[in-house]
Amino acid sequence: MDRTAHDTTVETWVAAFGAALDRHDIDGVLDLFEPDGFWRDLAALTWNVYTAEGGDAIRAVLSACLEGIAPTAWNIDQLLGSNNGVHQALLSFETRTARCSAVLRLRGGRCWTLLTAVSELIGFEETTRTRRTNGAPLRYEPGRPDWRTERDRRTAELGVTQQPYCVIVGAGQAGLGLSARLKQLGVPTLIVDKRERPSDTWRERYATLSLHSPVWYDHMPYLPFPETWPRFASKDRVADWLDAYATIMDLDIWTGADCIGSQYDEALGAWRLSIIRGGRPIELRPMQLVLATGFWDAPYVPDIPGRDRFAGRQQHVADARDIERCDGLRSIVIGAGASAHDIAAQLWEAGANVTMIQRSPTIVTRIDSLLPAVEIYDTDAPAPKPPTELADLLAASIPNRLMPQFQAPFIAAIKTKDAAFYEGLRKAGFLYDFGEDGGGFITRGMQDPSGFYIDMGASELIINGHVAVRSGVSVAAIRERSVVLSDGAELRADFIVYATGYQRLAQVGAILSSEIIQKLGPIGGIGSGFRRDAGPWTGETRNVWKPTRQRGLWFHNGNFGLMRFFSRILALQIKARHAGLPTPIYGLP
Amino acid sequence: MDRTAHDTTVETWVAAFGAALDRHDIDGVLDLFEPDGFWRDLAALTWNVYTAEGGDAIRAVLSACLEGIAPTAWNIDQLLGSNNGVHQALLSFETRTARCSAVLRLRGGRCWTLLTAVSELIGFEETTRTRRTNGAPLRYEPGRPDWRTERDRRTAELGVTQQPYCVIVGAGQAGLGLSARLKQLGVPTLIVDKRERPSDTWRERYATLSLHSPVWYDHMPYLPFPETWPRFASKDRVADWLDAYATIMDLDIWTGADCIGSQYDEALGAWRLSIIRGGRPIELRPMQLVLATGFWDAPYVPDIPGRDRFAGRQQHVADARDIERCDGLRSIVIGAGASAHDIAAQLWEAGANVTMIQRSPTIVTRIDSLLPAVEIYDTDAPAPKPPTELADLLAASIPNRLMPQFQAPFIAAIKTKDAAFYEGLRKAGFLYDFGEDGGGFITRGMQDPSGFYIDMGASELIINGHVAVRSGVSVAAIRERSVVLSDGAELRADFIVYATGYQRLAQVGAILSSEIIQKLGPIGGIGSGFRRDAGPWTGETRNVWKPTRQRGLWFHNGNFGLMRFFSRILALQIKARHAGLPTPIYGLP
Repeated sequence: MDRTAHDTTVETWVAAFGAALDRHDIDGVLDLFEPDGFWRDLAALTWNVYTAEGGDAIRAVLSACLEGIAPTAWNIDQLLGSNNGVHQALLSFETRTARCSAVLRLRGGRCWTLLTAVSELIGFEETTRTRRTNGAPLRYEPGRPDWRTERDRRTAELGVTQQPYCVIVGAGQAGLGLSARLKQLGVPTLIVDKRERPSDTWRERYATLSLHSPVWYDHMPYLPFPETWPRFASKDRVADWLDAYATIMDLDIWTGADCIGSQYDEALGAWRLSIIRGGRPIELRPMQLVLATGFWDAPYVPDIPGRDRFAGRQQHVADARDIERCDGLRSIVIGAGASAHDIAAQLWEAGANVTMIQRSPTIVTRIDSLLPAVEIYDTDAPAPKPPTELADLLAASIPNRLMPQFQAPFIAAIKTKDAAFYEGLRKAGFLYDFGEDGGGFITRGMQDPSGFYIDMGASELIINGHVAVRSGVSVAAIRERSVVLSDGAELRADFIVYATGYQRLAQVGAILSSEIIQKLGPIGGIGSGFRRDAGPWTGETRNVWKPTRQRGLWFHNGNFGLMRFFSRILALQIKARHAGLPTPIYGLP
Repeated sequence: MDRTAHDTTVETWVAAFGAALDRHDIDGVLDLFEPDGFWRDLAALTWNVYTAEGGDAIRAVLSACLEGIAPTAWNIDQLLGSNNGVHQALLSFETRTARCSAVLRLRGGRCWTLLTAVSELIGFEETTRTRRTNGAPLRYEPGRPDWRTERDRRTAELGVTQQPYCVIVGAGQAGLGLSARLKQLGVPTLIVDKRERPSDTWRERYATLSLHSPVWYDHMPYLPFPETWPRFASKDRVADWLDAYATIMDLDIWTGADCIGSQYDEALGAWRLSIIRGGRPIELRPMQLVLATGFWDAPYVPDIPGRDRFAGRQQHVADARDIERCDGLRSIVIGAGASAHDIAAQLWEAGANVTMIQRSPTIVTRIDSLLPAVEIYDTDAPAPKPPTELADLLAASIPNRLMPQFQAPFIAAIKTKDAAFYEGLRKAGFLYDFGEDGGGFITRGMQDPSGFYIDMGASELIINGHVAVRSGVSVAAIRERSVVLSDGAELRADFIVYATGYQRLAQVGAILSSEIIQKLGPIGGIGSGFRRDAGPWTGETRNVWKPTRQRGLWFHNGNFGLMRFFSRILALQIKARHAGLPTPIYGLP
């Protein structure tokens, strides 16, 4: 099909779609969708993160939202080409309160998938680019404070004499990025973190930790990594970056401030947060509370019989910050996920004899082979790439339900290309798979981001025998100088590292009442029914980036790319409330 | 002329030019230039920053350089349109050692101006974008140190057990930006600065200080300011930025390290720098020494009779960090340049009665009216703008000799547009002009960056009388409670601020021997013959960004935009020496 025909197909559809919406003709809209079509909405129509799967679900959304939201002025911003009879286009439109973007996939003249996403609130735009602040006054006024005096005053007052509208717990990349967005939207926001530096959560980790995703996927909001940045930054560089980011974005952070409890005051319409700051209790009363403490926030050490009697060194991988030379040390790494691989490799580099104990299969993907999955972001590549904002929209335009299907060709290519690699792992006794749905690490990440490893070199050590593997077994008991496996084998041990993961949401449990936690239901996962992600299917990550059953409570997390994109969606939901805009929520779980 | 004809004109010229160069046909090359044409070269042919003005000068350059440098493989990278019969194009070419860029202006089929500039050294490219480092190892090796350990070791060794190849004195924006470039080129570089933080030179200044150039002109190398950054950042934000920049670029800096003297050791082929660090003397022995200490680095206070007997408060503007409320304080600001305006406005905001004493005319330009002069950089503007790198090349492509001519229409437009503004200044008794050559602040900046003010609001205070002006006079004497002007008038005074500028190169004088300083000749200025820029004409800023008469000695400074661009030119000259490439210099003064 030539380009003109492609244009016409999209133009015809968008014109019909816009007209049907304008006359509130839901049947007309549905005629333009495939019966099993998808409409994913990110706070544009539903003030929620919600995917309507199929005609009935789309009808329900429109019946509830069309009148109040009134999406109109649909425009084709960019034709994105066609592939296998699927036409893609980037659209824009407006609602009563917001400017929005959309990504359309047409097939046989009807819509297969539609993504709608809020871009900015009309009249409450970010102070960026043409709307940046002047900084210097350009007009002097008696008594005007300079920037530094003003900042010092704000710092002194926020949380003390002035309540922040929003409190974010956690000053890691999630909290910092979201806070930067809220700052540009004029929402008074305070981050609290029990650590002394925003970056300490990174600095405290083991030495070989690095990002396992490429630099061009990991940009934080507003401040892309520079062209000098390493492809996979070491944890201490990430830490440096986070500290610099907080400074450059002029964020308000209380470090050394532990949030130890909370209560939602219905009368006040605000939270009462119990904070211990510098040893003294302080109450914060924000209208909005965002928990950005990470999902896996307390080391989990299985209660293996005999653990207390072990005469060697043992620690959780979270505490393995300083591993010095370990020459000849017989080291047992319990676990086979990402940190198990990292720490096994680090121990081998330090001279140890290393054995990894793998209970169940791991999804392993070579880093080189992973890159094509995110190549749309690769601005290093010679072929021109869309700006990150558009790449994010395109990535989000695939409904979660279709993700395994979209991943299939990519996974098939990996299996072929890396056949020798996987054969090597198999021969070494390592168990691998491509996830229960066959979708690889990307669908696994949606379900429960565990049980996979993006290979940065440790798999080679397993393949060539530098790191031994005992698979299909667990550690049944620990003795004074050995571990006993579930198959009865006994391995001598001087050092045991528990790469056994983390307790989910331990910090959240310490902050929220059990009543609220119960009300919320599961946090994270999409109800795939696969391991650690019990159903029912929800189509979207549960309770994250979207309203929860508790008023004024939000969760923010994800990998760097997801957080960059969803920080805007979440920030705009919070800003809408700050601005007093109507935010009728559709599909609250 | 239609686009095709434009294309053909450029293509024909470039083909003929490339062919003439390839056969070393200097007459053939000269036939392609206007007799008075210009060839500005930035370290591509001359290993110097040098403008050949006219055929004879171009012939001399080619006679000396053509054989050794062998510029070839000329390619049209981008046609830049034509205007008034002048065709512009961006070209690329290669020499024996470097990939280079060129900007061409053709008029009547012959070259009016040509800029050639080194872009990168073949085989010694920057570790950026596709050449960025991996960070994470991707292949483990026993004993490999992690990034942090490696950095800590480098920090401990550099300057102690390992001599840096290059030492930069001064950790302001000049030193930091150049050091970032050298880092990406693998040149071991150490910055020394007597202050405790890179940013302290900014933090110590008066509160209302801000950048007087727009954010999109002020990007430093590699790390553009984010879209959230204010248009004209306050000095404390600039300070925050510099600290963050040093961290992000992973620069090696000794703070609290005062360079108190130097000696070039001919036998060693290196400098012996006397450093006092933490109270202890240390000798550094770099091959290359860059002075990036700024040109105006020691407050200049004129020796006015009676100064010691003044009973009120008096200070140089450099020391006016903390000005509290000054209600009713009769304040005299001596001077009428940028800092005089800033401090006058700040005093007025603080409640003082302010009188500015202006001896000679000031070049005043309203900030709004200035922006068109740098609009090519305005990436906030709706019309698409070239990337900053290309904008820099275009800006550099105008020979300094032609700058007044290129500025003329811009100055004429300002005079018309801002007629009422200038009339207001005139009525208020303020003396203004457009520079001795009529080129305004831009040509003045090349000659001697003083005597101008980019109006950020203080002119309005003068026009409406909030800040009084006494012009055409100087302060002849100071009494206990007054100042006496050269016209005999006496003004009551409680507070005198000396906005009387700075001593030039005071710190350079403390570091270099008087023998070397004499050998160098003037530093800065282009020999325009105008105020504080004595001739003869040199066509390029003297001794800055280019080889000096002292081997291994360089100067780096300028405004943010100039430094961004020339830091690359300078870094590549240093890298060529580090790599042992031939660097025959043409036209050393």
